Amino acid sequence: MTPVGDPPHGTATDPRITRTRKDVLGAALGLLTSQGWDAVTHANLASGTGYSKATIYKHWPTRTAVLRDALLQLDDIPHHRPTGDLRADLIGEMTAFRAGMRDYGLDRAMAVLAEQARSWDELAEVRDELVSGGDRVVRELLATRLSGTELSVGTKMLSGTLFYSALMYGQVPDDEVIATTVDILLRAIANDGAA
Amino acid sequence: MTPVGDPPHGTATDPRITRTRKDVLGAALGLLTSQGWDAVTHANLASGTGYSKATIYKHWPTRTAVLRDALLQLDDIPHHRPTGDLRADLIGEMTAFRAGMRDYGLDRAMAVLAEQARSWDELAEVRDELVSGGDRVVRELLATRLSGTELSVGTKMLSGTLFYSALMYGQVPDDEVIATTVDILLRAIANDGAA
Repeated sequence: MTPVGDPPHGTATDPRITRTRKDVLGAALGLLTSQGWDAVTHANLASGTGYSKATIYKHWPTRTAVLRDALLQLDDIPHHRPTGDLRADLIGEMTAFRAGMRDYGLDRAMAVLAEQARSWDELAEVRDELVSGGDRVVRELLATRLSGTELSVGTKMLSGTLFYSALMYGQVPDDEVIATTVDILLRAIANDGAA
Repeated sequence: MTPVGDPPHGTATDPRITRTRKDVLGAALGLLTSQGWDAVTHANLASGTGYSKATIYKHWPTRTAVLRDALLQLDDIPHHRPTGDLRADLIGEMTAFRAGMRDYGLDRAMAVLAEQARSWDELAEVRDELVSGGDRVVRELLATRLSGTELSVGTKMLSGTLFYSALMYGQVPDDEVIATTVDILLRAIANDGAA
């Protein structure tokens, strides 16, 4: 997906433009996860970053444009690099997901996005891209052992347990919760004849 | 938790008052799940229900009061009544959870509540009460087979998978997804020596 907020002049690799984009989008994500959707306005971004409103409007003519690009930054949160040990890899990837929730407010940003995506098709695309990218590593790891509905459900079981814990219980999962979640799923996989 | 919006006159069992409360709180929940948090105002509730703003203010002096009581209605969504067959009971309870998402926008209401609860202590209490009540039947069912962290994680795996599917994939889970989620967890439970 190409960002809609490409600068209208210069090139995307111009270091000043790269810097402006990074500053403003970082501030936008911070506002979104700390104060909510409505706080992400050109005026708040200008006062928070020191750039003029005119500059910010040049990069992102609408609120939707800046929100979209701010959210797409979540696609860059690092994933675990698989090593070939399934248990360690699943725990590593879930630990990376936790870091995204703790350091970038990933769970809150996704919940807000899910709400807004119901009425904004463009944001539904952003949600789908982020969720599909976010779950990609887990899905690939589990695809060595599961397929079909079980693969889809197993993927959602891992991400969903941690997301639900963080969002609805207000508890970013600790190491024990992550390991227990992975181990329960692996026990089911090891027992696949007993359903 | 006692509703804060108790009527300032009459009794809670006065049928006219009961009717007013039901109408307004139903409208509030509808606005919340269809148009979001900011749409739930005394003015919108008055125009949506035909009651005067003054009447609505008499019952709920603040937006927080009406939002709180509207959300607490979700506590009344029916649960499955356990029969003693663990698999059927877990599937039954997850099917009731799905009905809550489909018929009352439970997933969206909870996501909005989770966001708002971060800055409003009173709403954090509402969230905790709803989540704890919502997961109670699942937890009791699983407590016959799991304990400690496994019980807590197993509970979140079931609810979390369905919640994550509905909210982040935009797919209210179908019967196959519900049965597969339950069966994966039951396979893990049947294999509890193999972790």
